[in-house]
Amino acid sequence: MDVKDCEVLLIIYEEQNLSKAAERLYITQPALTYRIRQLEKQFQLQIVQKEGKNIKFTSEGEHLVEYAKKTLQEEHRFKEFIANLKSEIQGTLRLGVSSHFTQYRLAPILHHFLQQYPKIQVFLNTSPNQEIFQSLQNGTFHVGIVRGTFNWVDQKYLINEEPFYLISNDEIHLEKLPELPRINYRSDTPPMNKFGYKPDTLLMEAIDGWWKDHFEVPPLITMNVNNYETCKQLVQHGLGYSIVPEICLKPQDRFFKYQMLFKNGQPLVRKTWLIYKESALELNLVKEFVQYIKSLNLHLPME
Amino acid sequence: MDVKDCEVLLIIYEEQNLSKAAERLYITQPALTYRIRQLEKQFQLQIVQKEGKNIKFTSEGEHLVEYAKKTLQEEHRFKEFIANLKSEIQGTLRLGVSSHFTQYRLAPILHHFLQQYPKIQVFLNTSPNQEIFQSLQNGTFHVGIVRGTFNWVDQKYLINEEPFYLISNDEIHLEKLPELPRINYRSDTPPMNKFGYKPDTLLMEAIDGWWKDHFEVPPLITMNVNNYETCKQLVQHGLGYSIVPEICLKPQDRFFKYQMLFKNGQPLVRKTWLIYKESALELNLVKEFVQYIKSLNLHLPME
Repeated sequence: MDVKDCEVLLIIYEEQNLSKAAERLYITQPALTYRIRQLEKQFQLQIVQKEGKNIKFTSEGEHLVEYAKKTLQEEHRFKEFIANLKSEIQGTLRLGVSSHFTQYRLAPILHHFLQQYPKIQVFLNTSPNQEIFQSLQNGTFHVGIVRGTFNWVDQKYLINEEPFYLISNDEIHLEKLPELPRINYRSDTPPMNKFGYKPDTLLMEAIDGWWKDHFEVPPLITMNVNNYETCKQLVQHGLGYSIVPEICLKPQDRFFKYQMLFKNGQPLVRKTWLIYKESALELNLVKEFVQYIKSLNLHLPME
Repeated sequence: MDVKDCEVLLIIYEEQNLSKAAERLYITQPALTYRIRQLEKQFQLQIVQKEGKNIKFTSEGEHLVEYAKKTLQEEHRFKEFIANLKSEIQGTLRLGVSSHFTQYRLAPILHHFLQQYPKIQVFLNTSPNQEIFQSLQNGTFHVGIVRGTFNWVDQKYLINEEPFYLISNDEIHLEKLPELPRINYRSDTPPMNKFGYKPDTLLMEAIDGWWKDHFEVPPLITMNVNNYETCKQLVQHGLGYSIVPEICLKPQDRFFKYQMLFKNGQPLVRKTWLIYKESALELNLVKEFVQYIKSLNLHLPME
């Protein structure tokens, strides 16, 4: 089975529908059907069955899909291996990066990295942490950048650690906080729980812990929004205070800022980590990228 | 059962864990347990069973939860009704708004509305369309603002209709597009399908339709990110082109912009709608808000 056959098979499997698969592959449906028939002849098995408008994979067909996936992965690794043998740093660097780090920090970093290594291409996905861990494990991503607290047993490097700030358009007397409306950041990252979306529980617990450290009544949450830029917009228009990490604040932002300190003096912080498998460093382009990120010293206080 | 009891019961039901529920209620766990026992005595039934560290509602307990929900809704409606009887426009306006409209447009609108009606409080949630429809139906939200194409049989009003633009840091010859890297916006709104998150299929299909109208090979997607601000950041740093709706573009943005026109001259657009139930207009504050939004004429071309 050649690479093209593998790709065709995986797309049919994703779509579970021949006309949609044909569209995605930029071929006609008869051409696609012909290709499946050829594969069926070659392997002497039935791959799919019709089921109304859709199709269903036979169990033999599903084994063939598994085989196709492995073939593609091997092909991938082999190409990387060959590219790596050549002295030049080249190839495709596959990154899975937290959406906030991508939004606020990544663009200039990638820009400068690619200026140094113009033969490298970057494939980037913003993904939830759990997806990044999985994709590093199975080799879909080379390097991950994740935020927060988690378990990752292979290599990790602390990129930075930012404090949280309470921001407001007007000066606040902190003891009055329970009477003021809060614009609450609530990530709607999946998976859903039975009451809706499961929020970033650990972060929420940390903020809640800070609150309980200071107040004995619950906060007055009037707005729940899923984006720090939206929090900032609403605060700017005097609709309440909000609690945001430093990463989203710009020098030109004119908020009253209060650092979130626990009563024991500890600040509420969010860590950002570079993570990867030790084995991924065998690829030159991964090694260069990891070294580059480390060389930026983003964990040092910024100007 | 009084309102406080209802709230206590719903929070226990959400947490399925007494110590967490007690924390959220800002009371001690013994006080919470006492409250449950009192309710059990009052209604002569068992509400919860222990199950390891967690608790489980009995089927009678679940009926009580349903009853508590209804009681709270009735209380809510009654309070609104009373507030409505008084001539002053006051009360809590509950809004469910698309995250992009919230991020790019809502803050100044709310700010001016609340200046006119200082006795109104706003409760706002950014939610996926499906959640907004449900919450309008069951009365949790008064008014929704949603984007895209959908079915909603009650009242709707077209707020605006924006074109999509292809943006790039450098000038592009459109026929070269298939060779250029695309920074692809991919919403990660739940629900998940078996291959990951289900993206906003209709929008993706529309963009894909535009592409197929112009090219016979697939686009070169190198980055998938979940935020238009991130798309803009990456485009600004020369990492590719992107396709974004007008709502996210600011006058100071310096991109090369190409409007997305189909070969028949039709533009690719995204509609934003105000939706509500006719019956919600019985509340003065809802009527005022709807009239206010309509008076803004956001569907007229902007300066």
